[in-house]
Amino acid sequence: MKPKAVVLLSGGVDSATVLAIARDSGFDVHALSVDYGQRHSHELTSAAEVARALGVRRHLTLAVDLSRIGGSALTGGIPVPKGRSVQRMAGRIPATYVPARNAVLLSVALGWAEVIGAKDIFIGVNTIDYSGYPDCRPAFIRAFERMANLATKAGAGGVRFRVHAPLIRRTKAQIIRRAVALGVPLERTHSCYDPGPSGRACGRCDSCRIRKKGFREAGIPDPTLYRQNTDGAG
Amino acid sequence: MKPKAVVLLSGGVDSATVLAIARDSGFDVHALSVDYGQRHSHELTSAAEVARALGVRRHLTLAVDLSRIGGSALTGGIPVPKGRSVQRMAGRIPATYVPARNAVLLSVALGWAEVIGAKDIFIGVNTIDYSGYPDCRPAFIRAFERMANLATKAGAGGVRFRVHAPLIRRTKAQIIRRAVALGVPLERTHSCYDPGPSGRACGRCDSCRIRKKGFREAGIPDPTLYRQNTDGAG
Repeated sequence: MKPKAVVLLSGGVDSATVLAIARDSGFDVHALSVDYGQRHSHELTSAAEVARALGVRRHLTLAVDLSRIGGSALTGGIPVPKGRSVQRMAGRIPATYVPARNAVLLSVALGWAEVIGAKDIFIGVNTIDYSGYPDCRPAFIRAFERMANLATKAGAGGVRFRVHAPLIRRTKAQIIRRAVALGVPLERTHSCYDPGPSGRACGRCDSCRIRKKGFREAGIPDPTLYRQNTDGAG
Repeated sequence: MKPKAVVLLSGGVDSATVLAIARDSGFDVHALSVDYGQRHSHELTSAAEVARALGVRRHLTLAVDLSRIGGSALTGGIPVPKGRSVQRMAGRIPATYVPARNAVLLSVALGWAEVIGAKDIFIGVNTIDYSGYPDCRPAFIRAFERMANLATKAGAGGVRFRVHAPLIRRTKAQIIRRAVALGVPLERTHSCYDPGPSGRACGRCDSCRIRKKGFREAGIPDPTLYRQNTDGAG
């Protein structure tokens, strides 16, 4: 019997690729998406499409209303930054940072893992082509793992939870090549922080710019439908 | 200006007492209750009454749908154990354990703390008169604190978050005496895991038994309305 794993699935390129990696590594994949009050629901629609296309044991979407605590451009109130070059993003934590998001997401994933008897949790965090979020760093992942083993009945009983972050040191171009090799339906993934009502990507937020640069550097045609023509500058 | 603190408030004796301690220690108290899909809503009603009675800057109730992941008698499906003596509870993790609950609650509290500029988080966990939950132990609290400082923009910027668990080594009788001294409206607190439709306590679940024993040992009359006459055995 395959070991079970919980994979956090946002609907973006990274988490979709992580799901394919977990499946390819022989895990029985349980995908978890969290509706944390994102400004738009296109991400969750993409997550469902990716889960269906790649095939998972189960896809659970769970509500955690982080929009009530505010403090982020992704949950409302603050504008999404546009037009920053990828170089200028490095080392800065932007307004799209959602306070303690990965701690919350991983904690919920930990709870589900414990219930289904999984000890492996996968998350698509990345420290190379990313927006400077603190909760994407390896030190955070290790600290979460230590906490997880003390937080749970399973941990108290000797189970060692592992948080896998297989993309943590990969560039976006490397991730996109890996995704293509594993058959990830990239045309169904969603990266934009501020899509139009149709779901079309803005092409100018940090996430769109990182995505475009990744496709360009990977030498793979970008299947994304953008809302407007945007300059090619990453 | 008083420093801000986030206090996790369930509506039980312990979290109400912790709120009073935080206020008494000079903090500007922001109370956070989480609707995690408890089988009953009496806890949240009690939390609102306690917050109002003690006076807080703000009381936020936020939904995190842990009932979707299952695995606990507190979120449905599994019966609440009844009639166990307090001695027999020790060292066992019962069916009322909610997988990774305190990791989830503290992560959400951390997010809110970061948004409002608080660095102190209070939680009413306890390792003496408790039901054997792993996420009430000091080692868990310390591991969470380490993770919290790596998980956040504030932490990356030098803020040191502290998780205060002032009741962690107190007996229920000591907690009740402290509560009375601080003017906590104990008659408004709710402990029962399985109350009737009216909100009356069952008197027989672990939480009721620990509560009754605490009042008895503190020599303070128990103001709780029980659904039925129950033996006095703690």
